[in-house]
Amino acid sequence: MIAEIICIGNELLTGLIENSNSSYLTQKLQSAGIQVGEMAIVADSQEAIARVLNNALKKCDLVLITGGLGPTDDDLTREAVSAAIKKPLILDHQYLDELKTLFRNRGFTMTDNNCKQAQIIEGSIMLKNEIGTAPGAIIEEQGKIIVLLPGPPHEMQQMFDHYVLPVLRNRIDDRVYLVKTLKCIGIGESLLEAKIKSLGNWKYHPISYIARGMEVDLQIKGTGNDQKARAEIAEAEKMLRNLLGKHIFGDNEQTLVSTVADLLKARTLSLAVAESCSGGLLSDLITNQPGSSDYFKGGVVAYSDEAKKNILGLSKTILFNEGPVSAAAAKAMAENVCKIFNADYGIAITGLAGPTGDGSGQPIGTVFIAIANVPDGQFQEKKFLFSGNRRTIKERAVQQALNIMRLMLIN
Amino acid sequence: MIAEIICIGNELLTGLIENSNSSYLTQKLQSAGIQVGEMAIVADSQEAIARVLNNALKKCDLVLITGGLGPTDDDLTREAVSAAIKKPLILDHQYLDELKTLFRNRGFTMTDNNCKQAQIIEGSIMLKNEIGTAPGAIIEEQGKIIVLLPGPPHEMQQMFDHYVLPVLRNRIDDRVYLVKTLKCIGIGESLLEAKIKSLGNWKYHPISYIARGMEVDLQIKGTGNDQKARAEIAEAEKMLRNLLGKHIFGDNEQTLVSTVADLLKARTLSLAVAESCSGGLLSDLITNQPGSSDYFKGGVVAYSDEAKKNILGLSKTILFNEGPVSAAAAKAMAENVCKIFNADYGIAITGLAGPTGDGSGQPIGTVFIAIANVPDGQFQEKKFLFSGNRRTIKERAVQQALNIMRLMLIN
Repeated sequence: MIAEIICIGNELLTGLIENSNSSYLTQKLQSAGIQVGEMAIVADSQEAIARVLNNALKKCDLVLITGGLGPTDDDLTREAVSAAIKKPLILDHQYLDELKTLFRNRGFTMTDNNCKQAQIIEGSIMLKNEIGTAPGAIIEEQGKIIVLLPGPPHEMQQMFDHYVLPVLRNRIDDRVYLVKTLKCIGIGESLLEAKIKSLGNWKYHPISYIARGMEVDLQIKGTGNDQKARAEIAEAEKMLRNLLGKHIFGDNEQTLVSTVADLLKARTLSLAVAESCSGGLLSDLITNQPGSSDYFKGGVVAYSDEAKKNILGLSKTILFNEGPVSAAAAKAMAENVCKIFNADYGIAITGLAGPTGDGSGQPIGTVFIAIANVPDGQFQEKKFLFSGNRRTIKERAVQQALNIMRLMLIN
Repeated sequence: MIAEIICIGNELLTGLIENSNSSYLTQKLQSAGIQVGEMAIVADSQEAIARVLNNALKKCDLVLITGGLGPTDDDLTREAVSAAIKKPLILDHQYLDELKTLFRNRGFTMTDNNCKQAQIIEGSIMLKNEIGTAPGAIIEEQGKIIVLLPGPPHEMQQMFDHYVLPVLRNRIDDRVYLVKTLKCIGIGESLLEAKIKSLGNWKYHPISYIARGMEVDLQIKGTGNDQKARAEIAEAEKMLRNLLGKHIFGDNEQTLVSTVADLLKARTLSLAVAESCSGGLLSDLITNQPGSSDYFKGGVVAYSDEAKKNILGLSKTILFNEGPVSAAAAKAMAENVCKIFNADYGIAITGLAGPTGDGSGQPIGTVFIAIANVPDGQFQEKKFLFSGNRRTIKERAVQQALNIMRLMLIN
C-alpha cells in the first residue's frame, strides 16, 4: 500500500512552522508497513487542494489530508474533496445537535461558521475529534482510501491513532515495509556505493545513501510480512557489516558521540578535551548526552595563545617555533589536558576554521587532532584539510576526533 | 512571482529527517518578496520527479529542486529534469577535470559514478558548490526558472545565497512582499501581543509572532512597490522599537550572540567563559562568529568538582558549604575565569540540566548565571529555574547569559 500525505495551510508555506504532522504520520504509517510515496504542502485554496488530491489518487492507494477542517473561511478541505471526487456535502443533523450542546455546555457562543463542521461528504465515515470540534472522515473512492484529519497536531494524532490506524491495519495484512539505518564514517558516499556494488548482485531492496558531513547513513529495507521483512533486513545488515567493518559505528538512533559515550562508560574511562578551532562544540556534544558527568571531566577552550600557554601549559618553543596550529601543539594540548583534568583520555583539536588564516601560510581548514591516554602511554595524531565554512570545519573536526577516539577504544 | 519547492529523497519520506531545506528556502524567498505556493517531497524516482516538476511548471514561475545531485545511483534529479524538459545531459569536460584534480589533491579515489556530477543540462548555468562536489544549476524554460540545488543543507544554503538569490532579486518587479524580523528577549509572546494591542488600531499588516526558546521573533511586512513596502516596514518598526525598547536585541540575521559580539568589538573588550551545566554550548556559539578570536579569549568547561577546584580555583568552602550549583560558585567562577584568561568580562553558568539532580535538593533546571568585569569591578548575578529537557535547559541558560551580558554592555 502506497500513501500520499497532503498538508493544508498557508501557515505551512511560510517556513516558520515545522510541519510535524507529516513526519508523525510517515513514521506511524511506515511502522505499520505502509510506504509514503510523496508529500505535498498546499495553500488554503479549494482549487489547489482538489488538483493535488486528484493527482494523488492517480498514483497511490491511500491519501491522508491534514488541516483545513476548521470553522473559518480559509478552511476549505471538505469543499475541495467534495468537488474533486464529485460527492456532495450533506449536513449531519445529529452532529450539529452535538456541537450545539457542546457549545452550550462550555458557555461559548456558536457562530454560523461552526455549523460548517457538521457537513460531511456523502458516503463517508465521520471520525470523532476527542479534543477539538472538527471531525475527520474516511472516504472510500474506487478502491482508494481518503482520510481527512484536523490540522492541530494533538487532535490529528489522537484521531489517527484511535480511528484510522486500526482501519488501515485491517487492510494491510501481510505487506509491511521496514527500514533500518546503518551509520558509517571514514568512507565517502561514492566509495561506499562502489564497495557495495563490488559484492555483485544485491538481491535486497536498493540501499539509500544519506551523507551528513563526514558520516553516511545507509538505509536498508525489508518488505513482505513482518517476519520476512525482518529477515531481509537482518541478512542485508550482516552482509554490510562484514563488508564495512569498523566503518559502521552504529545504527538507527545511535550517534557518533553516543557510541563513544557507551564505549567510555563500558570501560569506566574518563575524558577531557582541549579545543581551539572547534571552540567548545566537542564539549557541547558530549554534554548533550544524559549522564555525561560519569565520564566527562571537562574541557578547555583555548582560543588565544595566552590561554594555550597559561592554562594548557604549552611551551614557548611549541607556540613560537611550531605554532599553535601544529602537530606538536595538538600533542601537548592532548597530553596536558589529560593531566590537568586527571582523565584517562585527552582529546585536542587545533586548526584554522577561517574565514581568515593565522599568517602561518597553512590553508583554512587545516586541523590537527591528537588523542592521548597518558596513564597508558597511548597516543594518536592526525592532520586534516577540511573544506567548507567555519561551522562546517568545526563540525567535521569534531566528527573526526570522535571517530579517532572510537577507533582507539575498540582496538 | 510564485515559487514551488520540490525536495527529493527517499530519506525525507521516512519521517526521521527534518526537511530543513524547505523552511530555509521559504524564509529566504519570502524575505526577497517571492511567495511559495506549494511544496512537495518526492522519492528518488526519475518518473516521480519529472511528473511533479511538470505539474509545478504549469502553475508557477519558479521551481526550486533540492537533492538528488550526488554521485550515487539513487541521485536522479539531473536525469529527471532532463527528461521532463526534453533537454539532453552533456558532459562538462572542464568541471570533470576540476573534479579529478580535487580528488587527487585530497588523496581520494575518484570512482566512475563521480563523473555523473560533471553532467549538465544543455543550456543551463552551472552553479559552483563551494563545500561539496555536486554542482547546482539554473535553467530557463519557456519564461520559467528551474533551480537545482544539492541536498546537504550547508551546501544548499551557500549556493542559494551566493548564486541563486541575486539572480532572483533581479527578476522581481514592483510586486514585492517584504518581511523584516525584530528579535525580542525578556518578554513572553502573549505579553508582547498584549502590549502591541495596547497601541490601539494597528494599521499595518498583521504581525507574526514566532517563539524560539527565550526569544520571540516579530515579523512585520510590507507590500506594494519596493518603496512603499519599505516605508510601511520602517513605520511599523519605529512604533515597535519605541514600545519595546531594550527587549528588541536585533533584527533579521542578527542573533543574540552576534549582538554581544558587535558590542564587545565596538568597545574593544574581551571575554572568557566558565561553563558547568551549559557544557561548552556558550563557547561554541561565540566561536561560530567569524572573527571571534578578536574578543574571545577562551573558556573552561568545568564539568567535575575537581575541575572547578583545580582549574577555576573554587575554594573548598564554596564547593562543600555552598555547593557547585550556587550563587557563590557562579560568582567565583566568573571572577576567576576573568582573571585566569586575563579578560575584561567573565561569564559563568552553573546549574542542573538533568535528567538527574546532584543530591542538593535543588530542582532540575536551577541555573545560576554570574558575569564579572574584574578590572572595572562590575558584577551581576541571577538565578533561574528553566523547564524543559537537558538540551533546552542548556540553550535557555546560554540565551539568558548572553542577554545579561548584552544589557551590561549597553547600560
